[in-house]
Amino acid sequence: MNAEVSETVLFYDTDCGGVVSNIAYLRFVEKARAALFSNLGMGLATMNESQLFPVVVRTEIDYVFPAKLGDEVIITAKLAEVGKVRAQCEYALAVSEPGAEPRVVANAKQTVALVQMPSGRPTRMPQEWAKS
Amino acid sequence: MNAEVSETVLFYDTDCGGVVSNIAYLRFVEKARAALFSNLGMGLATMNESQLFPVVVRTEIDYVFPAKLGDEVIITAKLAEVGKVRAQCEYALAVSEPGAEPRVVANAKQTVALVQMPSGRPTRMPQEWAKS
Amino acid sequence: MNAEVSETVLFYDTDCGGVVSNIAYLRFVEKARAALFSNLGMGLATMNESQLFPVVVRTEIDYVFPAKLGDEVIITAKLAEVGKVRAQCEYALAVSEPGAEPRVVANAKQTVALVQMPSGRPTRMPQEWAKS
Amino acid sequence: MNAEVSETVLFYDTDCGGVVSNIAYLRFVEKARAALFSNLGMGLATMNESQLFPVVVRTEIDYVFPAKLGDEVIITAKLAEVGKVRAQCEYALAVSEPGAEPRVVANAKQTVALVQMPSGRPTRMPQEWAKS
Repeated sequence: MNAEVSETVLFYDTDCGGVVSNIAYLRFVEKARAALFSNLGMGLATMNESQLFPVVVRTEIDYVFPAKLGDEVIITAKLAEVGKVRAQCEYALAVSEPGAEPRVVANAKQTVALVQMPSGRPTRMPQEWAKS
Repeated sequence: MNAEVSETVLFYDTDCGGVVSNIAYLRFVEKARAALFSNLGMGLATMNESQLFPVVVRTEIDYVFPAKLGDEVIITAKLAEVGKVRAQCEYALAVSEPGAEPRVVANAKQTVALVQMPSGRPTRMPQEWAKS
Repeated sequence: MNAEVSETVLFYDTDCGGVVSNIAYLRFVEKARAALFSNLGMGLATMNESQLFPVVVRTEIDYVFPAKLGDEVIITAKLAEVGKVRAQCEYALAVSEPGAEPRVVANAKQTVALVQMPSGRPTRMPQEWAKS
Repeated sequence: MNAEVSETVLFYDTDCGGVVSNIAYLRFVEKARAALFSNLGMGLATMNESQLFPVVVRTEIDYVFPAKLGDEVIITAKLAEVGKVRAQCEYALAVSEPGAEPRVVANAKQTVALVQMPSGRPTRMPQEWAKS
């Protein structure tokens, strides 16, 4: 399963270094993760009712090139692997440039568990996701 | 001049009260302000090059009803008044509900000045904006 | 009742205008509000257990002078008025400068209600707070 | 070289899952990184003047246990390795518990480069940092 979203860099995404803050990219990643899980049948409104949430247990992110104010960042997400209680998501973040290939600005991976709140109990990953 | 944007409530917009954090609405407002100024001819990429920025000197916001995870918030922005060095922007934030009128979640006003960075010098408001 | 906290401006508080983002000041205000309510007997851990939260229903903030990376911002909070179901909080934000009076960077006011979650039911303000 | 800071979990650090958002921990890490570089002689105010910034080129973070509203998170940072143009920082985040050992909530690593803005040119790591 895949998903693609885009986000325009706003002031609150940048810092006084003049470019996008390392933390802001994690918001872009979260937006893509929400789209990915929505495609898998777990939309945000559904989660809010069921209180069953995909919880990030590990993040890796490599910052390749700085995005700047006004850039359109395209974030693609992929469900790369589905284990018993964990899944791997992979993300590519690129800035679209008119008349050129998108330029990669960051790559990320996340390990996600499904957790029932408020108990905090982990639940099994739906195995049909592996074939999605 | 007017602008309208929409934003889906993500996890990072909410807090442990279970609904959207009071601070997150200001991000929604900023997205609408960026669209409003873009419609006025000051897009974000333009600002980044000119280093001439609309700077918020006052914000008022009334929180009317809590938005929640997965809600689609529609934010409309209006340039309400243009003074010599300041302009008033007004915002309405509403959650779209299928088969019903959008429900107002917040209303906001901001006073904005145009400031040349890095000097910090305020500049005059373009008077043609008053007729836009 | 009063409270005072301080916060050093970090990268994530700033934006590409080179100074503190208008939104970041609301985090500083929230830190002061948490200290104020803690002094009133409603600490954060208590709130988390009781699920009785002070909810911001209105914010006004005037931005007076831009704080910048590394500045120490001192935020004072005051419970200015206690009504039946709402209270007014006032905040002054200033940057400490060695060998000089602190410089005001922003002033804010918030109207706060006490709300029981998850029902969302407002509760009466403790009237003894008026004499605190 | 080491550094230690602490941060109390506020509302804006949490999300509707009821615990600290995965993104908020990166703010805690940034606070510790700022303290670490300050101990190395690069305080935030110095950076702001020199426009020479430590830029994060990679982050890894493992989320071990969820911190919640009101928890005091202690973040320790260590300069683990100094290369020609990159340095490795390691972080441990733990929640202090009265009468018990602090409980680990997350562990993180970051690779950092020193970048001169606005040119974006990387500069050499001070080799004396290796012995600090």
